[in-house]
Amino acid sequence: MTTKSAALPSATLVNGFETEAIGQIVGALSNDKALAKFQFRASNQWIGGGENRSSVQGFFGAGAEDRSRRTPFTIVNGEPPLLLGNNEGPNPGEYVLHALAGCVTTTAVLHAAARGIHVKSISTELSGDIDLQGLLDLDPAVRPGYQQITVKMDIEADCDDQTLDELLEFACAHSPMCDTLRRPVPVTLERVRHR
Amino acid sequence: MTTKSAALPSATLVNGFETEAIGQIVGALSNDKALAKFQFRASNQWIGGGENRSSVQGFFGAGAEDRSRRTPFTIVNGEPPLLLGNNEGPNPGEYVLHALAGCVTTTAVLHAAARGIHVKSISTELSGDIDLQGLLDLDPAVRPGYQQITVKMDIEADCDDQTLDELLEFACAHSPMCDTLRRPVPVTLERVRHR
Repeated sequence: MTTKSAALPSATLVNGFETEAIGQIVGALSNDKALAKFQFRASNQWIGGGENRSSVQGFFGAGAEDRSRRTPFTIVNGEPPLLLGNNEGPNPGEYVLHALAGCVTTTAVLHAAARGIHVKSISTELSGDIDLQGLLDLDPAVRPGYQQITVKMDIEADCDDQTLDELLEFACAHSPMCDTLRRPVPVTLERVRHR
Repeated sequence: MTTKSAALPSATLVNGFETEAIGQIVGALSNDKALAKFQFRASNQWIGGGENRSSVQGFFGAGAEDRSRRTPFTIVNGEPPLLLGNNEGPNPGEYVLHALAGCVTTTAVLHAAARGIHVKSISTELSGDIDLQGLLDLDPAVRPGYQQITVKMDIEADCDDQTLDELLEFACAHSPMCDTLRRPVPVTLERVRHR
């Protein structure tokens, strides 16, 4: 004998996020700030020349080790022939632009959801300027890293332009990777023996 | 009738790089500094929630547009369930660690090749600490970005430990993405209409 099952109460999805879940996270972190501490990780192996590969799986967050990824993600760095590689993958500078685009996008749609703004689409074009004299140690006055990064974002949502401008300014200021680029991060390198 | 073909003169490969090619690049950039100016790019599309995808193909360098990539690379950002995603891919913070590992590795093996040091292996473990109170705007005193990044690199090469330590310190100081993280990069965000 079958019975009609009652429909489960549907979660309120805005921009792909359950707004109740956002509220629960904010509530939990407000009650216990230690839950907000995260540590992300990667393991990388040199293959040869400009090719190397990272494995990404575990991380620490919300007070515990995350076990949600059954298999690791593998990510390949390469270089184009002009930079002595074989286009094995995007190069590290391109991955940083990808990370920046993704982080600003996710920060924008997350905070939009918290404000009840429904985002329809986002597409972003990024460019980063670099002078290889820094990498090659040809001029100590030239920094090796990006001299500037430009992000051009096209966002469509059910709000007016001023609200969109405020949302994007807020998103860039609160995006973890935008802040990582805009302000100095202490990077320490230690030589070890893993095996 | 077959004849024995003479062997082509073999290039001097060190760490996967032709040392003659490194010398040619350094010579060309020393003669014309404008050739050292590069611009890397990415285009990103929001899919939904914490998922978005970048397309990476062209870049400008050595005075011209590069055309070596016949098809674009596609890279996927995701988030774990703990951060309201479905593990569609590594998250932006993990991509930054991947980029840093790859850039320091490539910088190290490139400058090692220029010095005649033969690298046998490199494996790297990275971790980055972040406090989500910044992203969630719960405490303005907490920065949204990485608070610190630790790189532990295991390198084997045909030189002594002091030479390795000097090489890695040099590599971190001259790695474009290590410098990008250690020192501020101006990031400008502009809202546009792409279509």
